Amino acid sequence: MSPLDEKEKVQPDEALDYDTIIEKKTDELTELLDRHDMKTLQRRMEELNEFDVAEFLSEIDDNRMPMVFRLLSKETAADVFANFEAPEQERIINSITDSELAGILDEMYVDDTVDIVEELPANVVKRVMRATTPQTRNLINQYLHYPENSAGSIMTAEFVDLKKYMSVKESIARIRRIGEDKETIYVCFVISADRKLEGIVTVKDLLLADDDTVIEDLMERNVIFASTTEDQESVSEKFSDYDLMALPVVDTEGRLVGIVTVDDVIDVMEQEATEDIEKMAGMLPSEKPYSRTPILEIWKNRLPWLMFLMLSATFTSMILTSFEDMLAVQAGLVAFIPMLMGTGGNSGAQASTAVIRALSLSDIEPGDVFMVIWKELRVALLCGLALAAVNFGKMLLLDGLILHNSAVTVSVAATVSLSIVFIVLFAKVVGSTLPIVAEKLGVDPAVMANPLISTVTDAVSLLIYIYAAKLILHI
Amino acid sequence: MSPLDEKEKVQPDEALDYDTIIEKKTDELTELLDRHDMKTLQRRMEELNEFDVAEFLSEIDDNRMPMVFRLLSKETAADVFANFEAPEQERIINSITDSELAGILDEMYVDDTVDIVEELPANVVKRVMRATTPQTRNLINQYLHYPENSAGSIMTAEFVDLKKYMSVKESIARIRRIGEDKETIYVCFVISADRKLEGIVTVKDLLLADDDTVIEDLMERNVIFASTTEDQESVSEKFSDYDLMALPVVDTEGRLVGIVTVDDVIDVMEQEATEDIEKMAGMLPSEKPYSRTPILEIWKNRLPWLMFLMLSATFTSMILTSFEDMLAVQAGLVAFIPMLMGTGGNSGAQASTAVIRALSLSDIEPGDVFMVIWKELRVALLCGLALAAVNFGKMLLLDGLILHNSAVTVSVAATVSLSIVFIVLFAKVVGSTLPIVAEKLGVDPAVMANPLISTVTDAVSLLIYIYAAKLILHI
Repeated sequence: MSPLDEKEKVQPDEALDYDTIIEKKTDELTELLDRHDMKTLQRRMEELNEFDVAEFLSEIDDNRMPMVFRLLSKETAADVFANFEAPEQERIINSITDSELAGILDEMYVDDTVDIVEELPANVVKRVMRATTPQTRNLINQYLHYPENSAGSIMTAEFVDLKKYMSVKESIARIRRIGEDKETIYVCFVISADRKLEGIVTVKDLLLADDDTVIEDLMERNVIFASTTEDQESVSEKFSDYDLMALPVVDTEGRLVGIVTVDDVIDVMEQEATEDIEKMAGMLPSEKPYSRTPILEIWKNRLPWLMFLMLSATFTSMILTSFEDMLAVQAGLVAFIPMLMGTGGNSGAQASTAVIRALSLSDIEPGDVFMVIWKELRVALLCGLALAAVNFGKMLLLDGLILHNSAVTVSVAATVSLSIVFIVLFAKVVGSTLPIVAEKLGVDPAVMANPLISTVTDAVSLLIYIYAAKLILHI
Repeated sequence: MSPLDEKEKVQPDEALDYDTIIEKKTDELTELLDRHDMKTLQRRMEELNEFDVAEFLSEIDDNRMPMVFRLLSKETAADVFANFEAPEQERIINSITDSELAGILDEMYVDDTVDIVEELPANVVKRVMRATTPQTRNLINQYLHYPENSAGSIMTAEFVDLKKYMSVKESIARIRRIGEDKETIYVCFVISADRKLEGIVTVKDLLLADDDTVIEDLMERNVIFASTTEDQESVSEKFSDYDLMALPVVDTEGRLVGIVTVDDVIDVMEQEATEDIEKMAGMLPSEKPYSRTPILEIWKNRLPWLMFLMLSATFTSMILTSFEDMLAVQAGLVAFIPMLMGTGGNSGAQASTAVIRALSLSDIEPGDVFMVIWKELRVALLCGLALAAVNFGKMLLLDGLILHNSAVTVSVAATVSLSIVFIVLFAKVVGSTLPIVAEKLGVDPAVMANPLISTVTDAVSLLIYIYAAKLILHI
């Protein structure tokens, strides 16, 4: 069988699900490794996508992994290395020579190297920094100085720069000459002699233009850009709004210092969504994936809100204690407190979640607060009435007739149902308003988290219930 | 002032925040509109990014908007139209002629037209379908038949196809000829005579290769692809794993039928994250942005879980009722029930949120269930002990000494604190396990929503509390 025939085997028409194809290929790699057929293993790994090679290497045992990694060509090795998670990167760095490490780092983009430096332990970072060129080392140090999660901290330096007096032909020649090592060649950045950003031009523009056209006549002058200190959330919003492939990052003098590419933005978006979700569930955002976060760090992220919420429940306890005598008169009332608090908490969480998400997608702005309240009031009324009606029937039929709970009278059922309507109204309005207030105050709306809102609604739900009981049951 | 001078004004070095620049420019457009200086308005709009023009047009009043829209050149009009939200699209369609509409639709990518057809009311869609070419109409009908949120439903048909016997020179010539209307030219798809996908080649490969190289020797054969019926979540995972710009979509015979581009995937990611967040907060996922969802639809999305959770709280009520006598003996105990349930609910929500997110980012798999339980058990023990210790001190000092709550004795404080430890343990284990069980059963883990887990922990928290009271207080 010729090498070409072997290659032909991996055509998509063989199996029509990419994941199945990759699984089969990975199984084959494992088999080759077990048979010690290193030569075929080497060839097959080069054929695969670097992400899949990284996945394969992460699965094999720690002792053999660096040995298999060394089978890779220098270029593939760098790509696979960039796709590794931190533990695998550390293992590799600790098992290769300084010159091998320098070779890999030389092939990598600066933003990936910065990620390594940020994630790995100090002793490993020391080796990494020694192995890079002085120029890269300077860049890394510069990038590390930008605020965490800023455009500066996620940008990279490998872009194609052009001058506005160049012709299309010269520009394409330049791309051919320097394009190999650039993170993207499809968007080129036109800069002045003092490196100020003057425009952008895409390879599509270049290919569709005449060879003699001058860049100045072709370039887009209305450049969408980010500042180095701009938050990464704002960067990813620009990609989403303007359908960008790459975004230039400029310093305070308007000089082009780096670019952010769309693949990095996809990671940012996942990270930002995770953070929002964590905050909404009352956790501090974690730096690492769940599987790699140590117990103590998870504990530190989760305890503060649990503690705060536990202590703030003191208010609910105090309300309950002070109305103890009243509740004792009609003991059956206590049984419905958890349901009422739960309904309040859930209603509030729904509203706050919807509003937090709408804010973070720029669907609504703080100025829309009255539109939101008016919307939530009507939704709350509809929800509250539906819940109250069903509850009224359920209490009389199920609790009263079927479960023979003698404490459940028509008046008690009416008390609970009336409370539901007002609790839902209160919870939805507070749940939707607090995140907007937070946004207006410059606080992250997700931090006005669902648990916080449910603590407020817990206390108020109880008060509503007690006043409804006074009103209807005259106790 | 020459036109060029005017253009120079919009350079990034004038103001160093893009949002500020756009705001100033938009204010200028409004001014020009108010002054009825349509000629300058027209020129200025053409200079702006189509997204910003769409934003500007959405802000001006309904009567003047279509008139201003008509100032745009045919090409810009199509881009701006694609950037509009549904209400603006409807308004425009209802105020332009059939031939103007045909012109816009002709310039648009098929995936954007499909979005319009899916979102707009039937009478508007009818006009749109009449205005498209028969070929586009067929494509639209084909795309509408793919399952909702599948690769087929988000793909587009405008890609560059090459043949493997072409030279680099011929390929570049082809791109120059047909590239103008393609959604991306940077990834080209190599197909056989019967349209089967054989490989991909990037413009970077083409530019860096010799003119005479044959595509067959240049193309990547290990093509990452999606099937037409594949879920969009799996599509976006491929973009994130493999750092793609475009992904080919093939039918069951391996024929290339469309491509998905990275800008569409960014929208998919936002949509999927929103859905997950909504499900976790006990809502059915919404189709539209919050600001555009009618009251009745919000109500329909929110009521089912509220109703289910309200009714399932019947168990908690039953437990409370059956232990009424016991709780009456030591009335002070009731005051701490909301706090205990809250702590249980919050602990469980933290664990389930962390696990749901880790599952959806493929950080953990169902097979990791024991790793997760072991991790959560230790975190729970640390959280539980810390909370219990603080609670014990707080009850004796604050409730007992400061608030003079005579019901709070050392034994009562011990009962509540002991309960906290076991409640947190139970909540964390259930909260982390249920989403994994769901995933294993093929149910969406986010549907094992936090509210559902909190209902389970509510009932169990109460039972733990009652048994702790029996044990310590002997009642």
